[in-house]
Amino acid sequence: MIETPYLLFLGDAPDALAAKVAQGIRDWRPDNCMGQYRMEGCRADLGLPEMGLAEARAAGAKTLVIGVANRGGVISKAWKKVLVTALEEGFDLASGLHNLLRNEPDLVAVARATGRSLHDVRVPEVDYPIANGVRRSGKRLLAVGTDCSVGKMYTTLAMEAEMRARGMKSSFRATGQTGILITGDGVPLDAVIADFMAGAIEWLTPDNDPDHWDVIEGQGSLFHASYSGVSLALIHGGQPDALVLCHEPTRHHMRGLPGFDLPSLQAVRDLSLQMAHVVNPDCRAVGVSINTQHMGAEEAAAYCAEVEVRMGLPTVDPFRHGAARLVDAL
Amino acid sequence: MIETPYLLFLGDAPDALAAKVAQGIRDWRPDNCMGQYRMEGCRADLGLPEMGLAEARAAGAKTLVIGVANRGGVISKAWKKVLVTALEEGFDLASGLHNLLRNEPDLVAVARATGRSLHDVRVPEVDYPIANGVRRSGKRLLAVGTDCSVGKMYTTLAMEAEMRARGMKSSFRATGQTGILITGDGVPLDAVIADFMAGAIEWLTPDNDPDHWDVIEGQGSLFHASYSGVSLALIHGGQPDALVLCHEPTRHHMRGLPGFDLPSLQAVRDLSLQMAHVVNPDCRAVGVSINTQHMGAEEAAAYCAEVEVRMGLPTVDPFRHGAARLVDAL
Repeated sequence: MIETPYLLFLGDAPDALAAKVAQGIRDWRPDNCMGQYRMEGCRADLGLPEMGLAEARAAGAKTLVIGVANRGGVISKAWKKVLVTALEEGFDLASGLHNLLRNEPDLVAVARATGRSLHDVRVPEVDYPIANGVRRSGKRLLAVGTDCSVGKMYTTLAMEAEMRARGMKSSFRATGQTGILITGDGVPLDAVIADFMAGAIEWLTPDNDPDHWDVIEGQGSLFHASYSGVSLALIHGGQPDALVLCHEPTRHHMRGLPGFDLPSLQAVRDLSLQMAHVVNPDCRAVGVSINTQHMGAEEAAAYCAEVEVRMGLPTVDPFRHGAARLVDAL
Repeated sequence: MIETPYLLFLGDAPDALAAKVAQGIRDWRPDNCMGQYRMEGCRADLGLPEMGLAEARAAGAKTLVIGVANRGGVISKAWKKVLVTALEEGFDLASGLHNLLRNEPDLVAVARATGRSLHDVRVPEVDYPIANGVRRSGKRLLAVGTDCSVGKMYTTLAMEAEMRARGMKSSFRATGQTGILITGDGVPLDAVIADFMAGAIEWLTPDNDPDHWDVIEGQGSLFHASYSGVSLALIHGGQPDALVLCHEPTRHHMRGLPGFDLPSLQAVRDLSLQMAHVVNPDCRAVGVSINTQHMGAEEAAAYCAEVEVRMGLPTVDPFRHGAARLVDAL
C-alpha cells in the first residue's frame, strides 16, 4: 500500500509520452495528486501545481512517485539527488521502473536511515496464498481481451469512474504496475510465482458488500502464447460475475507474436465464459470495449455498431464514447 | 543440470513412503543410481548397494541426492553431519525439500569452501525467456489431466521408457521437482515467475531431430482453479503434437477444492485441443491414461474398456497394463 497524496516526479521527461504513468495518475486519481515536480529541461506538464520537496511535504504529500520513464535503464545522478533529498524530507518513493529502487545502494541506505519505504511496484511485496476457489460475497467484473495492450486498464478505470459518479460501490483492482501506481495498491501479476497467481487475485478481491463491484484490470489474453496462463489465473482467481470483452481492430497479429492471428471476439467470449463457469456458473459477458485510437470518428462509430449487432452486446470505445453503456449493462 | 551418477540419501526414513523420491529415481533411472546411503534406523530399502560416502565417491558418484522427506521441515543435526561430510568428500548435493539447502548457512559455507554445488530443484536456476511462439522442429507429447496428481508424471515416464525400449528417440522433460531429481534437469514450473512460464517450457523443449519426441510431464489441470494458469502455459509453451489425457476415476472432487467436480475427459480433451491449436494446429489427442490404483483388477479393466469405447482412444493404466498401447498410438 503506497501512502497518498502523491507528489508526481516528472524528472527531465523529454516529452509528454515519457510521463504517461504520471498522466494516468493525474487523469484517474486527481485527488491523490498534490502537485508535480519538474527538473530543468522537463517537457511534460500535467497542469498540477509546481511544488518543491519541502513545500509539498509541508502541505501533506506522503510519497514521491516516479511518473516518468528513465532513459537507458539507468537512474541518473540528477534524479538521484532529488530522490535522496525526498527521502531526507520524509517522502516514501514509489516506482514502476525496470531497474529497481531497492537495487540502488544509496537509496536503500538513506531509506533505512530515515525510516522511509521504497515501493517497487513491479515486485510483489506480499506472500500470496494458493487459491482455494471458495466463493466470495460481492460482485466482480473482469476485462478480457483478444490480445495484450488492447485497452483493458483504460476500460476498467473508465467503468469504475462511471460507477463512482453514479454512487455505486466499486473498487478498481490493479493487476499491473501502472494501475498499482494509480490506485496505490494492487497485484503485479506478471511478477507473481506461478503457483500463487490465482491466489493473488483472490487476495486482491476479498469478500465485500453484496452490491459492491470489484472492477478487475485484465492482463494478456487466453489466446496469447506468451501470457495466456496469467489470463486464465485472473479468470479462476477473480470468479467474475461479468466480463467485458476488449479488442483493438487494426492489429495485424498478436502483440509480439508475428504470424499469430488475433482470435475473434466470439472465441474470446465463449472460451472466457467456459473458464469462468468453472468458478462462477452465473458469469455473463455484458459488453464490448473497442480501442478505436487508430480509426476516424465515423469509422469507429460504424465499427462499434457492427460489433454491437454481431455480438448482441453494448459496444463502445470508452475513451471516445464514455463507459456509461457498459455500466448500464451491469 | 545435476551431475550423475547419484548416491541416494535415504536418511532415517521411517518407512518406504518417506523415500518415494529415491524410489522414483531408482525405478526410472537405475543407471543413475550407484548406491544408497542409509542412516541408523532407516526403514526404507531400495535394494541398491549400501555405500559409504568415500566409497561411493571413489566409485565415481557425483551427487548425493536427498531422496527422503524430512520431518517437521527441519534438516536435522544427524542429516547435517552427513551432508557436510559429503561436500567435504567432493559430492554436490541435490534436494527437493521445502526448506532449501541454500538457506542453511553451514552448508553454504562448506559448499563455497569446497567448490561444490547445492541444487534446490524447487527453485529455478535459469533466467527463462518470454515465450515467442515460434514453431520448433521435432515432436512433442504432453500429458494433460482432469485434476492434479492423477498420474501425469508416471504416464510420461512410462511412455518414455517404452519409447526408449523400442529404440525411438525421446526425452522425458520434467516440469516438477521429483521429475527433475529423476532425470537431473527440467523446469520447476510452479516456482517460475508468471511472465516466463510458457517461455520456460519453450526453453525446455528446443529444436530437435524431426523424429525425436519430447515427452513433457504435465502439471495441474485447465479446470483446477488454483493451478490452471500453469497448465495453460504448458500447452502454449509446449506446442504439443500429441496429448495424453490422464484421469483418476475414484476422486470425489478436485484435489484441494471441496465442492469442485472433476471435468469429464471429453471436456479436458476438447479444451486442451482448442488451446493447443493456437500454437500447433496439428495437435491430436492420442490416448487416455487411467490411474486405477484404488480399483480391483477387473474393475480397472472394465473401466478402461468403457472409456476406450466412449472416447475412441486407446485407454490403459500404464502401471498395470504398460504404456505400449499409448506409444503405439503415436
